[in-house]
Amino acid sequence: MPRYDAPVRDMRFILNDVLNIESYNNLSGFSELSEDLVDAILNEGAKFSKEVLHPLNMVGDQQGVIRNADGSVKTPDGFPEAYKAMAEGGWTGLSASPEFGGQGLPYVLDSAISEMMSSANMAFAMYPGLTHGAYSAIVAGGSQEQKETYVPKMVSGEWSGTMNLTEPHCGTDLGLMKTKAAPQADGTYKITGQKIWISGGENDFTDNIIHLVLAKIEGAPEGIKGVSLFIVPKFILDENGNPGERNACGCGGLEEKMGIHGNATCVMNYDGATGYLVGEPNKGMRTMFVMMNAARLGVGMQGLAQSEISYQNAVDFAKDRIQGRSVSGVKAPEKAADPVIVHPDVRRMLMDQKAFNEGARAFSLWTSLQNDLEHRAEDEATREKAGDYMGLLTPVIKAFLTDKGLKGCIDAMQIHGGSGFTREWGMEQFVRDCRIALIYEGTNGVQALDLVGRKLASKGGRAIMTFNAEMDAFIAENDSEDMKLYIDALKTTKGQLQEATMWLMQNGMTNPDNAAAASHDYLHIFGYTAFAYMWARMAKAALAKKDSGDSFYAEKLATGRYFVERMLPDVAAHLVKVKTGAEPLFLLEEAQF
Amino acid sequence: MPRYDAPVRDMRFILNDVLNIESYNNLSGFSELSEDLVDAILNEGAKFSKEVLHPLNMVGDQQGVIRNADGSVKTPDGFPEAYKAMAEGGWTGLSASPEFGGQGLPYVLDSAISEMMSSANMAFAMYPGLTHGAYSAIVAGGSQEQKETYVPKMVSGEWSGTMNLTEPHCGTDLGLMKTKAAPQADGTYKITGQKIWISGGENDFTDNIIHLVLAKIEGAPEGIKGVSLFIVPKFILDENGNPGERNACGCGGLEEKMGIHGNATCVMNYDGATGYLVGEPNKGMRTMFVMMNAARLGVGMQGLAQSEISYQNAVDFAKDRIQGRSVSGVKAPEKAADPVIVHPDVRRMLMDQKAFNEGARAFSLWTSLQNDLEHRAEDEATREKAGDYMGLLTPVIKAFLTDKGLKGCIDAMQIHGGSGFTREWGMEQFVRDCRIALIYEGTNGVQALDLVGRKLASKGGRAIMTFNAEMDAFIAENDSEDMKLYIDALKTTKGQLQEATMWLMQNGMTNPDNAAAASHDYLHIFGYTAFAYMWARMAKAALAKKDSGDSFYAEKLATGRYFVERMLPDVAAHLVKVKTGAEPLFLLEEAQF
Repeated sequence: MPRYDAPVRDMRFILNDVLNIESYNNLSGFSELSEDLVDAILNEGAKFSKEVLHPLNMVGDQQGVIRNADGSVKTPDGFPEAYKAMAEGGWTGLSASPEFGGQGLPYVLDSAISEMMSSANMAFAMYPGLTHGAYSAIVAGGSQEQKETYVPKMVSGEWSGTMNLTEPHCGTDLGLMKTKAAPQADGTYKITGQKIWISGGENDFTDNIIHLVLAKIEGAPEGIKGVSLFIVPKFILDENGNPGERNACGCGGLEEKMGIHGNATCVMNYDGATGYLVGEPNKGMRTMFVMMNAARLGVGMQGLAQSEISYQNAVDFAKDRIQGRSVSGVKAPEKAADPVIVHPDVRRMLMDQKAFNEGARAFSLWTSLQNDLEHRAEDEATREKAGDYMGLLTPVIKAFLTDKGLKGCIDAMQIHGGSGFTREWGMEQFVRDCRIALIYEGTNGVQALDLVGRKLASKGGRAIMTFNAEMDAFIAENDSEDMKLYIDALKTTKGQLQEATMWLMQNGMTNPDNAAAASHDYLHIFGYTAFAYMWARMAKAALAKKDSGDSFYAEKLATGRYFVERMLPDVAAHLVKVKTGAEPLFLLEEAQF
Repeated sequence: MPRYDAPVRDMRFILNDVLNIESYNNLSGFSELSEDLVDAILNEGAKFSKEVLHPLNMVGDQQGVIRNADGSVKTPDGFPEAYKAMAEGGWTGLSASPEFGGQGLPYVLDSAISEMMSSANMAFAMYPGLTHGAYSAIVAGGSQEQKETYVPKMVSGEWSGTMNLTEPHCGTDLGLMKTKAAPQADGTYKITGQKIWISGGENDFTDNIIHLVLAKIEGAPEGIKGVSLFIVPKFILDENGNPGERNACGCGGLEEKMGIHGNATCVMNYDGATGYLVGEPNKGMRTMFVMMNAARLGVGMQGLAQSEISYQNAVDFAKDRIQGRSVSGVKAPEKAADPVIVHPDVRRMLMDQKAFNEGARAFSLWTSLQNDLEHRAEDEATREKAGDYMGLLTPVIKAFLTDKGLKGCIDAMQIHGGSGFTREWGMEQFVRDCRIALIYEGTNGVQALDLVGRKLASKGGRAIMTFNAEMDAFIAENDSEDMKLYIDALKTTKGQLQEATMWLMQNGMTNPDNAAAASHDYLHIFGYTAFAYMWARMAKAALAKKDSGDSFYAEKLATGRYFVERMLPDVAAHLVKVKTGAEPLFLLEEAQF
C-alpha cells in the first residue's frame, strides 16, 4: 500500500518564508497566526491525513459506494467514522466565519490542509470539499435567515452539502437547463428535474444534506439568464430547525466511473421537492460564480495532491528497487544491482514531478492568499487587486495543475514499471482518481476559453496588467547575481507570455476562433510564467536562509534550477502553436473527420 | 458502447500508394498480392474485428478473468468462441510460413490486421499476439524437430504460447534471474522458479499452452550471459505429439491490474516442470531478441490502436453532443446549441489524434515492411539494411507510439467531458488498457536507453547513417513547389535530429549519464523525424492522386499540414532538453528526494 506524509516542511517554507503570512496580521483570522500555530495546525492536519484518511484510500477505491433499493447508500468502510472525526477535529470549518461556528482561520491555511486531505484520500475529501463549496455559496448569496439556518450545521460537519448543476444534456452550457422551479403560495418552490454527476449526492454519515440546485423558475428568460439557485434539503427542517420530513428528492442511481470510487456520484431526482430561492430570481449563476473560483482552485490542488502522493511513492520505489547498473559505473557494489534512482531517466521523471509539485504548491497557496485578501482586506484597492488575481489565475491553476498533475501521476506509475500497473501498489489509483480533475468544475478547455475569452479582457485587461507590473517590480528589486538564473528565466518567460498576449489582442479580436484555438497553449504559457515567478520568489526566500545549515534551502535552489533548465523550454513550443492561429485546426470540414 | 470501424481506407492508401507493396512481388508471400487481394483481406479483418472482437471488449473489461481453485481460469464470456473463430479464419497464421501451415502473407499485412484487432479488443488480441511471438521464437531458435512439433499447432490456433521473462525481483535486469533448469539424463531439464506478469499464462480455449521460459542452467555463468531459453508445454506431448501428461507448471494467481482485464496475467509457478532447451545453453537472450523487435513493434501499434478507436468515438461524440455556441457565430441555428466539434479546442484534440494516428500507421507499416525485407529479401544488402532499420526504429515505435497514443486516449476521453469518466461510454477503458503499453516489453525509458546506448552506435552508426541518407535522397528527389511544406519540415526536423545526435556523440561518450539523460527527449525527436518523413511520403502519394476526385487525398494533405504546423514545434523543446546534459538531473543527492 502506498504511504503518505504531508509535505509540512515545504508548506511551512511557503507560508512563512515565501508568503510571509505573519505580515498579514491586520487581516481577520491572521492576527494570532504565529509560526508556531501554523506549525501546529499543519502537523495536526498531516497526522489526521496520514493516520485517519490515507488508510481508507484504497479501501474506498476497492469497495466503492453501494446504493440500496431505497436510494440510501453505503459508503466504504471507515468513511462515516472518518467524517465524524474530521468534524470533531474542527477541520470542516477551519476557514469558515466564527459567526457560523467556524474557526475563521485563513483560507490559505485551509488550502494547505485541503492539499493534504486530497493527497491522502481524494474521494473522501470531496465530501467536505463540496460541503465547503455549498456553504460558501449560501454565505455569498443567501439571506441572513438562510445563513443562520443552514451554514452552522454544515460548518460543524453535522450536515453536508452538494452542488447540482449538470443535467444529462447540459454541463458546460447550463443555459440548456430543464430543471423547473414552480413558485408556491408560501414563497417556496417545487423543484422538478434530474441532475447528474452529483458528488456526495447521498451519504451515510450526515444527518442532512443541503443540496444547492440550479433550476429555472416557470416563465424565466431563455438561457443562462433564467437560471436561479435553490436550497433543497434532503430533510425539510421542522420548526426547531431540525431535519424533519423527507423531501421529494434522492439518489436515483450511482455512476460507475474510472476513479474516485469512494465518492457517491449520484443521479439526483427532484420530484417536486421543496426548494428555497437563494438570492434573486434568475441570478443563480452570479452566486455560483462567487464560489466557483474557490472550487476550481480546489480542483487544481487535487492535481497537485495526486501528483504529490504519487511522487512520494515513486521516490520510495526508486530508492528501494534494484535493477541494472548505473551507466556511469556501479553505485551500490554491495547489492546485486543499483537502485533505479541512479538511472538518469528515472531522475528526470522524479525531478519533473518535484519541480512541478513545489511550484504548484507555491502558486496555489499564493493564489489562496489572494482569496483571503479579496474577502478580508480592509482597503478596497487590495480587495480589488486580489479579486482580479483570483479571477485571472483560477482557470490557470485549475487546468495547468491538473494537466501536469496527471502527467506526474503517470510518470510515478511509470517509475514503478510493471508494479505500477497492478492494483496492489496503488499507483494506478492515483492516475484514475486524478483523471477527473481535468474534467469537472469546467473542463480544462473551458478554463482556457474562460482565460482568453473573459478573464484577460475583463475590465480593460486590468488583472494581467497588474500581474505583469508585480512581476516587473519583483524583477527590478531582485536582479542580483545570486538571483540571476531565476530572474533571467522569469524575464524570458514573462516576455513570451507578453508576446502571446499581444498576438491574442491582434488576432483574437477580429477572429475569435484564433483566440479559442490558442487558448490551451496560452494557458500553459501562463502557467509556466506563474511558476517562474513562484520559483523566483522561492529562490529569494531560500537564498536568504542558505547559510542556515539546513540543506532544505540548497535543495530548493537546485529544484528551481531544474525547473528553469528542463521545464521552461516547453514554453517556446507553446508560443509557436499560439501563433499558428485557428487555420490549421479548420482545414477539414466537420464531415471529413 | 463505443464503436469500431477499421481504418481500411487509410491502410489501403499506405500499403498501395505509399509503400507500393505490389512492387515487392519478388519477395515470398508478396508475389500474388494484388490490390484486390489486399482489399479483401483488410475488409475481412475489419469485419472480424468489428463484429466478433469488438463486442467483447467491454465484456472482457467488466468480467475479467477468474481463476479456479485448481489453477484453471475462466476467460470472459465469448472469448473462447472468438479465439476458435479467429483460428478458423486463418488469422493466427497469416504471416507464418506455409512450411508450418501458415498463409505466408507479408508481415506488413499482418501488422495492419493486428492494429485492427488491438483496437477492437486489446486484451483479447494479446492471446494470439503472444502466441505469434512464441512461435516466432521457436522458428528463430529451435531445432527442426521443435519447429515441426510445436509451431504448426500454434500457427493453426489449436495451441497458444507465452513468453516468460519477468520474475518478482527482475524485469528489466534479467541477469538477476533465479529460475533454475536442472539437466536430466534424457536431455530434458527440470525447470523450477516463479515468473510473474505472464500474459495469457492460462486460458480456457486452447488444447495446450507452449510456455517459452527463460531460466539458468545449474552452473551457468553469472548474469545475463547465463540465461537459456526453454519450451515448457502445459501438457507434455505423448508419443503421437498430442497433449498428454500435465506438466508441473501452472497459474498460481492472477494479477489485479488497471486494465486489459480480459487477459489472464498470471503468476506462473514452475515446480520441476519438464522443459526442452531451445538453441544453445546460455544463449537464450539471443533468440529472445530475434523476436523482440517484432513484439515491441506490436506493442507500439497497441498505442496507435487504442488512440485510433478512442479517436473514432471522440469524433462521433463531438459531432453529436451539442453544447454552447461557436465563438465565431452560431453554426447550427436549427439546434439548441452547436455540436462541440465547432469549438477550436475540441478540433485541436481531434486533429492531434488524427495526425498522430495516420503518421503512426504509416511509420509502423513502413517498419513492418522492413521486417519482411529483413527476412524475405533475396539479396544480403537489402536484408542487412532492413535489419538495421528494424533495430534502430523498433525502440522509437515502441516508446513514441505508446507515449503519444496514451495522450490520444486521454484527449479523446477529455472531449467526452464527464461522460468520458464514466464506465458506460467506454472511453476510460482505452486509457486503462493503453497504459500498460508504455511499460511492458521494456519500459519506454528502457527503449530510449536502448536507442541511444546501443542502437545508434551499433556497427559504427551504420543504421542511422543509412536512414539519414534515405531521407536526404527523398528530399533531393521531391523538393518541388507542391511538396515544399512537407520537405521543408522534414529538412528542419532531420536537422534537429542530426544536431541532437552530434550532441550525443560529443557528450555521451565521455559521460554516459549525458546520453541516458538525453535519451527520452532524443527518442521523441527521432519519432517526430520519422513521422515527418512519413508525412512527406504520404504527401507525395496524395499529391499524385489529388485530382482523382476522391477528397481523401486533399484531407491527407491537410492533416499533414496540421502535423507540420502544430506538432513539430515540440521538437525544438526536446532539443533544448537534450542539450542540458545530465547535470540538472543530478543536482540532488539520492537522500534529498
